[in-house]
Amino acid sequence: MKQFINEKETVVTDAIDGIVGSSGGLLTKLDGFPHIKVVVRTDWDKSKVALVSGGGSGHEPAHAGFVGQGMLTAAVCGDVFASPSLDAVLAGILAVTGKAGCLLIVKNYTGDRLNFGLAAERARAFGLKVNMVIVDDDAALPHLFQQRGLAGALFVHKIAGALVEAGENLESVTAAAQRVIDSAATIGMSLDTCSIPGSPKDDRIALGKAELGLGIHGESGVEQVIYTNARDAMAMVVDKLAAIITDGPNVVLLNNLGGTTDLEMEVLANELLSSKISKQFQYIIGPARLMTSLDMRGFSVSLLPVKDSDILALNTSCAPSAWPGLRAVQSTELIPLPDGLKPVLPLATGHPSRRELIERCCNIFIASTADLNALDAKSGDGDTGSTLATASRALIGSLDRLPLADMTQLYRAIGLELSQTMGGSSGILLAIFFAAAGDASSSGRGIIGALNAGLERVQEVGGAQVGDRTLIDALRPALDALPEGIAAAASAARLGANFTATIVQAKAGRATYISPDQLRGHNDPGAEAVARLFEQLV
Amino acid sequence: MKQFINEKETVVTDAIDGIVGSSGGLLTKLDGFPHIKVVVRTDWDKSKVALVSGGGSGHEPAHAGFVGQGMLTAAVCGDVFASPSLDAVLAGILAVTGKAGCLLIVKNYTGDRLNFGLAAERARAFGLKVNMVIVDDDAALPHLFQQRGLAGALFVHKIAGALVEAGENLESVTAAAQRVIDSAATIGMSLDTCSIPGSPKDDRIALGKAELGLGIHGESGVEQVIYTNARDAMAMVVDKLAAIITDGPNVVLLNNLGGTTDLEMEVLANELLSSKISKQFQYIIGPARLMTSLDMRGFSVSLLPVKDSDILALNTSCAPSAWPGLRAVQSTELIPLPDGLKPVLPLATGHPSRRELIERCCNIFIASTADLNALDAKSGDGDTGSTLATASRALIGSLDRLPLADMTQLYRAIGLELSQTMGGSSGILLAIFFAAAGDASSSGRGIIGALNAGLERVQEVGGAQVGDRTLIDALRPALDALPEGIAAAASAARLGANFTATIVQAKAGRATYISPDQLRGHNDPGAEAVARLFEQLV
Repeated sequence: MKQFINEKETVVTDAIDGIVGSSGGLLTKLDGFPHIKVVVRTDWDKSKVALVSGGGSGHEPAHAGFVGQGMLTAAVCGDVFASPSLDAVLAGILAVTGKAGCLLIVKNYTGDRLNFGLAAERARAFGLKVNMVIVDDDAALPHLFQQRGLAGALFVHKIAGALVEAGENLESVTAAAQRVIDSAATIGMSLDTCSIPGSPKDDRIALGKAELGLGIHGESGVEQVIYTNARDAMAMVVDKLAAIITDGPNVVLLNNLGGTTDLEMEVLANELLSSKISKQFQYIIGPARLMTSLDMRGFSVSLLPVKDSDILALNTSCAPSAWPGLRAVQSTELIPLPDGLKPVLPLATGHPSRRELIERCCNIFIASTADLNALDAKSGDGDTGSTLATASRALIGSLDRLPLADMTQLYRAIGLELSQTMGGSSGILLAIFFAAAGDASSSGRGIIGALNAGLERVQEVGGAQVGDRTLIDALRPALDALPEGIAAAASAARLGANFTATIVQAKAGRATYISPDQLRGHNDPGAEAVARLFEQLV
Repeated sequence: MKQFINEKETVVTDAIDGIVGSSGGLLTKLDGFPHIKVVVRTDWDKSKVALVSGGGSGHEPAHAGFVGQGMLTAAVCGDVFASPSLDAVLAGILAVTGKAGCLLIVKNYTGDRLNFGLAAERARAFGLKVNMVIVDDDAALPHLFQQRGLAGALFVHKIAGALVEAGENLESVTAAAQRVIDSAATIGMSLDTCSIPGSPKDDRIALGKAELGLGIHGESGVEQVIYTNARDAMAMVVDKLAAIITDGPNVVLLNNLGGTTDLEMEVLANELLSSKISKQFQYIIGPARLMTSLDMRGFSVSLLPVKDSDILALNTSCAPSAWPGLRAVQSTELIPLPDGLKPVLPLATGHPSRRELIERCCNIFIASTADLNALDAKSGDGDTGSTLATASRALIGSLDRLPLADMTQLYRAIGLELSQTMGGSSGILLAIFFAAAGDASSSGRGIIGALNAGLERVQEVGGAQVGDRTLIDALRPALDALPEGIAAAASAARLGANFTATIVQAKAGRATYISPDQLRGHNDPGAEAVARLFEQLV
């Protein structure tokens, strides 16, 4: 079983306990488990019209996820894809209905119609005012009388919920709900069927096919079509809606049928927003999971022509966090790319002694190429020496264009050169080192201070510490000793570099993947390079 | 391809256009597509500290879905599971950072650390104040130095975002973010790997196995474990957290890794809320999709010990609808089942003429058993006659306990008897008929009015109209003619019943599935039963 459930029989009651328990005290349930599964708002005093919906489970967050201030008063939950019982519906109605009455919002499935319908009769026999509306927004089956109830139910829940909050009476809320139902239309499409807990999966949709005109219970779509890509898929759905779209203004609701990733849903949103009906709708809800079919890898688009009062009702805030809000479709201005992405090198300036020092350092690395490569071969791909030598030659070649006379500018320019010639993580880390040193230099710190700032930043970004078997094991003690002179720094660097031969569990860099036996007795090549640099500068 | 994308190369840019286009004008992007993919708040004036996060795509709604007032200022998006480029990060920083500075919130992956780190250096060279924190909340790898950044990043985004809104300065926001990072811990588990666009799926997790200690890039978990059910799965995750949980108060965050259904997530929430650490956390965020790994069928639990100021920051409202809010863990009182679920039959009363009429009607149906069964065999399972006869016999048997003297009570009692003895849709529809008739009778309507009310309600609940080839085709004209006498009603019923033999496309009930040739020339059995009833009552 590739599902996080305990057993098929308890999946819905377990889930209801989860949603109630994580509701922050906003939801509770009727004391009728497991037969009667009704989720109810705790902040309900029966002074307003109650809104009760529900049906089979497997459509989460519908319906319990939409119980709360501004939407439903109660959700009556059946087992997965099965209508709740008459008793459950009646219990839900009786629990939340006061003098203002109750509107049942029922999707057009026989079991739901009959159980909610008879429950309504029973409740009326108690003197309660109970109305019922049947949501049948399915636009895929125009030739059949009984169109299914799909994600368009959310328009009804939200608009009726807002009217209830505003204190409208039962007749007014019912009339608005019926008007929304009469004008809502939904078309769905899926690339795969859903996995019903405890049942084998029906793999009827072949690769390269999709089903168009989809319900929410895993039943076959009205037609199988060729699936090529998101653009063509949305175009097929939009074609169906284009045939019935009215002047509007219109709202579209983009619903995830459950198993489509959010990345794909955003791609589909983009296709909808650039489709041939994109100029005919002014508002969008989603993309979001609203009326799902377990893990079905599909989506649906619902359409509703709206009046100003509908927009207001869809736009008011409400408690259920599953409601994604209404957004006006409007283009936003692009933000121009900022200046400074391509750094401009400062003018070259001369400084003979610095020039000579840089050349000396570079030549030390170049002379160590073979030794460093050999060391690196013990724990990596054997190219530390070559990489350093290449970068060193490139730096020597760039000396004529470097701002040698200005230390701050020089650090930054060296960093830029290295990031462009070295590549990989080492290049970026050295670029960070010199950029940070330049920063420190510009704040008035001297050479040692600048180098320390560079090392600190490299440690922060790269995450390595002393003892992790990296060049830091040589550079950190060298910089610490540098105030006492270059000879002291060289000694400290050598001690540090040699110590790396005893570190057999690397904690950063490539050597983390190497076994202790391969590491023991060999200096880290980066630390060795640092030690040689200081030793030969003495 | 079972994914709604156009092509692998454009999936992220298409998705960003979708999220910007459906944002209601709250989001826009930098003008650097496709290389530079940066999503930015439109309501940003650089007066406060900028919060910039990002990384590879495939983690939706992270990161672009959390851009907005109270959370991130900008999200820098890489391709799927790939770090964004240095240029993209730098462009993002430069576009949103003013004098108050910028905090980079980076998850602990080498590519992200280096690119965000060097971009920070470059931005500092422009004189901008830029800090960076590294989120490493992965608690599955305590022995390794570099712990991954997982869903715990959301704690940082929300708390830092709230502090920014409150006007805190860069140092204060950075310190709070670092404190959250130092104490957050996350463990993930999955039953399956994820499907990376354009790549074959790695089916390495066998049925009956799960991976524990999971990252968010499809890499193998730290260990494979036996998977039995949701309870044991959550217990394994909780075991890891129990080892590190502190006195708290604590917040848990239950994250969907992408492909788990909301039904399953609610089951998992219930298991977490009843787990052995359930007394040690006081707040819960989710279950929700926050930091996903495409369609990975898994979840993660993140843990954060919190101070009062953190609770306040997690609890403040924010613009991104993907943020599910913080909820206090508290038990709610069950609502007792309402009275009235088991209707009490009123006291039996006598009324000889009504008793005789009911017996007569019942006997008419009983006498028609064979004929009605034969008609039903043309379009159904051949049991209409038997079903009516069984119900008729049961009704005759109940006459001694019916309240025959009170019409209102009698209608309701007959409805109750029929719903209990007939079963199925017919039983519920007849129960609705008589319950509605009882209601009408209680409001003072006479027999014809009551019967009309019953029929109207049956039509509303059942959805059938005249012409749909149901018993309504006989009953509607019969009731219309009834004011002129029973003979007129009988004639009208007969005409209506016979007309059903010409209706070859049923629109309601079982006959919708039958071909026209099978229906032509045969009366609907329900309509025929009604016609016989009225004819024989004449």
